[in-house]
Amino acid sequence: MRLRLDIAYDGAGFHGWAAQTGLRTVQGELQTWVRRVLRLPGDVTLVCAGRTDAGVHARGQVAHVDLPDDGTDPADVAVTLARRLARALPDDVAVRAVGVAPDGFDARFAAIWRRYAYRLSDGVPDPLDRFTTAAVRGGLDAAAMNAAGAALLGLHDFAAFCRAREGATTIRDLLVLESVRLGDGRVEVGVRADAFCHSMVRSLVGALVEVGTGRRDPAWLAGLLDAPGRCGDVPVLPPQGLVLEEVGYPPDDALAARATLARARRSLADASPEDRSLEEAP
Amino acid sequence: MRLRLDIAYDGAGFHGWAAQTGLRTVQGELQTWVRRVLRLPGDVTLVCAGRTDAGVHARGQVAHVDLPDDGTDPADVAVTLARRLARALPDDVAVRAVGVAPDGFDARFAAIWRRYAYRLSDGVPDPLDRFTTAAVRGGLDAAAMNAAGAALLGLHDFAAFCRAREGATTIRDLLVLESVRLGDGRVEVGVRADAFCHSMVRSLVGALVEVGTGRRDPAWLAGLLDAPGRCGDVPVLPPQGLVLEEVGYPPDDALAARATLARARRSLADASPEDRSLEEAP
Repeated sequence: MRLRLDIAYDGAGFHGWAAQTGLRTVQGELQTWVRRVLRLPGDVTLVCAGRTDAGVHARGQVAHVDLPDDGTDPADVAVTLARRLARALPDDVAVRAVGVAPDGFDARFAAIWRRYAYRLSDGVPDPLDRFTTAAVRGGLDAAAMNAAGAALLGLHDFAAFCRAREGATTIRDLLVLESVRLGDGRVEVGVRADAFCHSMVRSLVGALVEVGTGRRDPAWLAGLLDAPGRCGDVPVLPPQGLVLEEVGYPPDDALAARATLARARRSLADASPEDRSLEEAP
Repeated sequence: MRLRLDIAYDGAGFHGWAAQTGLRTVQGELQTWVRRVLRLPGDVTLVCAGRTDAGVHARGQVAHVDLPDDGTDPADVAVTLARRLARALPDDVAVRAVGVAPDGFDARFAAIWRRYAYRLSDGVPDPLDRFTTAAVRGGLDAAAMNAAGAALLGLHDFAAFCRAREGATTIRDLLVLESVRLGDGRVEVGVRADAFCHSMVRSLVGALVEVGTGRRDPAWLAGLLDAPGRCGDVPVLPPQGLVLEEVGYPPDDALAARATLARARRSLADASPEDRSLEEAP
């Protein structure tokens, strides 16, 4: 029996998503509470769509969990789990929905895109936003950031923006990179890709900020594409500005095919979007 | 020399606006820092437009401060003060602008309206909003709240919604009371009046919630108007959902006349909007 969980959290109190012995993590907290409220005899494992780093928030995290089948209708288990978690969970993490996963659903491998938002303040900061916004030095030209960012769209090697991981590809398909000035004066950068490698969103936005303040020009930004490795000139912004907003999945009848494809890792040579399965704490 | 300060704060760490010996308050914190960064020999007093209760936030608080005239150009003092406060203040309070107050400006008595917003969550709460949103039991019908609230508009005795204060009028002119469902699923109640008496916004929204959940009908709400005193049936909502968003002032050439009028307290008999000068921790 596989359930899908839609999850939101304030990352400030967690050492990231991934369970680590002795540290408070989102995965660890949820696994503890799922087991406890369902009175399960053994451990459970949650698999998520986007592993977030320490301090990174989520409004649209998705995970699945496989539970022992004791003959109860899975739909009833989902309702019970949602109700009990709502009462039991600490107030910095919420399970917003629990449902029976459709056939072939895999929170990580069936996902076709992840959308993050990064919020920046370049004026006098609003104290009410300080836990979800990063302050930057210098005024930002959001239109210039938006225009320069367009050069990064598409299938590229984003190694310049990623913390290297042995044997892992840094090729990703960047679908959206939009910078807008919000009505409240902040600048929001929306980023959507098939998946992200480690520190990629915080580095992409860090590079855009360099352009938005005029410290770098758009040619510098475009020149980072397809570089062989991490670029020290790209600042990695702090985690509190970043929120995992949404994860996209194909229609139910295409889920299984998608997950199978995503499990097979690919090289740049065949350039298929299905290879970038490893969402790694962007 | 009178300066105008535009102020924002996260109310969670303060025992309200008004200075109290031994407690951390917004007024106390700001007075300490204004004196310190300008190296003034004596105490200074900030006068605000809307005294907020413990835990209530502000994005658009306005205050004035009178400083000793040592011959320095007031515009230079304003720039210096803004720059030094930006560096010195703790991160839960920000002075967003400092300017030379126009002739006749008085943050409290020249104000012609105050606008507050109260944000409610009736679904699974978003952990990122938990410091600025109040969770309510039961689903809210925002349209019903909006329709019912219209009956309260205008000049009335709001004693049913106010904590009594000896000798103080509870007559106010309620200009706006709008309830809308936000895109993120929360319900926002926007309230604007010439001024508010103590606990008035939190009680108005508390009463609207009773209607929005169906526990009370619109006739009950309308019946509270012009009641002789505090009504125990009206819940006072918690402070963290409330934000002082904006304060309105007349054009500069009408400031002095407005402040003079507002200082003279009036009775219901002459029903002039100028009497409701006492904004009291709404």
